[in-house]
Amino acid sequence: MSPPLITFLSDYGLADEFVGVCHAVIAGICPSARVIDLTHGIPRQDTRAGALALLAAVPYLPVGVHLAIVDPEVGGRRRAVALASGNGRTFVGPDNGLLWLAAEAAGGVTHAVEISHSPFRLEPVAATFLGRDLFAPVAARLAAGATLGEAGPPLEPAGLVRLELPRAEVRRGEVRAHVLRLDGYGNAQLDATHEQLAAVGLQLGRRVSLTTASGEHEAVYVRTFAEAPRDALLIYEDAARRLAVAVNMGSAAARLALVDGGELVVRGVA
Amino acid sequence: MSPPLITFLSDYGLADEFVGVCHAVIAGICPSARVIDLTHGIPRQDTRAGALALLAAVPYLPVGVHLAIVDPEVGGRRRAVALASGNGRTFVGPDNGLLWLAAEAAGGVTHAVEISHSPFRLEPVAATFLGRDLFAPVAARLAAGATLGEAGPPLEPAGLVRLELPRAEVRRGEVRAHVLRLDGYGNAQLDATHEQLAAVGLQLGRRVSLTTASGEHEAVYVRTFAEAPRDALLIYEDAARRLAVAVNMGSAAARLALVDGGELVVRGVA
Amino acid sequence: MSPPLITFLSDYGLADEFVGVCHAVIAGICPSARVIDLTHGIPRQDTRAGALALLAAVPYLPVGVHLAIVDPEVGGRRRAVALASGNGRTFVGPDNGLLWLAAEAAGGVTHAVEISHSPFRLEPVAATFLGRDLFAPVAARLAAGATLGEAGPPLEPAGLVRLELPRAEVRRGEVRAHVLRLDGYGNAQLDATHEQLAAVGLQLGRRVSLTTASGEHEAVYVRTFAEAPRDALLIYEDAARRLAVAVNMGSAAARLALVDGGELVVRGVA
Repeated sequence: MSPPLITFLSDYGLADEFVGVCHAVIAGICPSARVIDLTHGIPRQDTRAGALALLAAVPYLPVGVHLAIVDPEVGGRRRAVALASGNGRTFVGPDNGLLWLAAEAAGGVTHAVEISHSPFRLEPVAATFLGRDLFAPVAARLAAGATLGEAGPPLEPAGLVRLELPRAEVRRGEVRAHVLRLDGYGNAQLDATHEQLAAVGLQLGRRVSLTTASGEHEAVYVRTFAEAPRDALLIYEDAARRLAVAVNMGSAAARLALVDGGELVVRGVA
Repeated sequence: MSPPLITFLSDYGLADEFVGVCHAVIAGICPSARVIDLTHGIPRQDTRAGALALLAAVPYLPVGVHLAIVDPEVGGRRRAVALASGNGRTFVGPDNGLLWLAAEAAGGVTHAVEISHSPFRLEPVAATFLGRDLFAPVAARLAAGATLGEAGPPLEPAGLVRLELPRAEVRRGEVRAHVLRLDGYGNAQLDATHEQLAAVGLQLGRRVSLTTASGEHEAVYVRTFAEAPRDALLIYEDAARRLAVAVNMGSAAARLALVDGGELVVRGVA
Repeated sequence: MSPPLITFLSDYGLADEFVGVCHAVIAGICPSARVIDLTHGIPRQDTRAGALALLAAVPYLPVGVHLAIVDPEVGGRRRAVALASGNGRTFVGPDNGLLWLAAEAAGGVTHAVEISHSPFRLEPVAATFLGRDLFAPVAARLAAGATLGEAGPPLEPAGLVRLELPRAEVRRGEVRAHVLRLDGYGNAQLDATHEQLAAVGLQLGRRVSLTTASGEHEAVYVRTFAEAPRDALLIYEDAARRLAVAVNMGSAAARLALVDGGELVVRGVA
């Protein structure tokens, strides 16, 4: 039998001992749990980036407890929650949209409880380190077999905070898209779909124009990096099946001065 | 039964394979050991920062072997040691003050041995990578059940190198405090206590003046970030129960140009 | 009995969820596998740096599956491979030289298979994230007991891509060496050997001259950092038994403006 699995994502970074302390708290409560760090490099307090990383990961995670902490309003009025999803997963974190996209992709939220005052928390609770004193202990107890109902009082799933992503639009023969995520290689994931690019006549192997705040750029629309020349700008479908902009052996973020949420207009080249 | 636990803290960083090689050495010697990385992001050769991180973590660590390596004098005359503490913990690392604060907090050192020439070391020992050839092997053997006495000859706990922290002082109605630690969010932990702030008349919810090398700043004294406006400077009790300076949704280190050890004068605002 | 062991090295960095997702994929396929991260901080797409890190680590790794991904030609024509080495190790990664040095050091490649179209891959395979969809699944299956032959068709070891390192030369009483690696402390590993330095008359404890693109510098040739004064430039034998340049309590890379592959001329000081 597999040990209980906890995945852990946060914006804590690895410079401080915060992540290690959460691991230690989990090991103390549920020594058999295996903890997989998804990433702790989410940009500080960037709930959307955290939600998108968790969404990208969730199809590849064994069923388990998915702990996520990006919590700019720590100590404020936002609730702390634990959620059960349609396909048997459990999510633990702040109710600020961080868990929303992944929980939706995992079958939607079927049960939810508020854990802000969970009996599983460690007393005294430090208002500024709920990972250690609230979220990690609750995740560990759930991994050890506790039920959601034991973690806190029920709340109505319909009242959970949602996360709205920008949506690309097709207008007058062009796609107005936005940067959803920038990864460490400088690749930029867009909110545009294959269908939207096809709708304005763009095809694999053809050239496209990308207009950003930094001006107009030409790119090729390819299946993978190696189909474009070295240092060429390209559009491709990324590993999360979204369209993305990259530079072969380079950084699209640097080349195009891209920022999270920034707009790109994609059109065909005559 | 829980597997033997080793926690591991260093200034090795994660860019190189140093941490991974130490994990591999431990796995080879004690395959059942579970290793929790506290952090490897201690600023290079900053023994005090390492000691403070270990001190902050230790109350939350399951009892086990606590391996810590920040060793600016590697290959020099400082000793390598393994220490047993009053509450059953074992610390392994250089005798340069790194282990001192945590061992004191864990009941004080009851037994100590010098491991510089431990029979557990891997030969040939590389003078510049004692983590791999000395500290990790000793930690792994202790986790696997070896006794301190088998790791090396005894030494007098009273002769261990200690670490002195700065101490805030109350003078003429103000608190002269120092920055103990800066974390990755830019929050600055001080050496001042609640009692010292109370002694000069400061109270939760009230405004205070902070004078640093960068000038005079006004802050609010609150319980948690969310009680201060966005971008406001604030003083609060941090997760280690020490007073700290922060900016809500920002960086106090950047705002006040704070540096480790820097002085802050805290006084009430009329 | 020890659990199956997988070591994992890449240039994915830790800012994104890529490493975590590979861990999750492995945990789903082979829950009993223990995964040790060697490093994910290899400079992006720097195959040689990855190969040297793996080479430095391999003598210290328990026998297992050694997964390594630095893959600048991802999606191109380079093959994906799994290799068995003379001393019972298994290497999984791209056939671009990344695995070559470590496999040679581990007894040489005795069997090799091409896994580009392995039945173990996860469908649909994303051309830009083969770590998740190809390399991690193959490594996990091999750790779980599958044979190389089940992972893909055999290929001739003699046809594997090799990695050539620069070689220091002795000429007219001086050693012309090159920087092989720069570590996070700013220490520079050279391709020169003790024998080469001895051949031009250099001895431990003596001064040497180092000429780089940044000019001529004087260093001492010592056994370990502590034998040189603080801030002094020094030459020593590093933990991989190669000669290296360092600054005691400082960074040689910064002091000498060293770059990977850069040339250094070492000669005696009269």
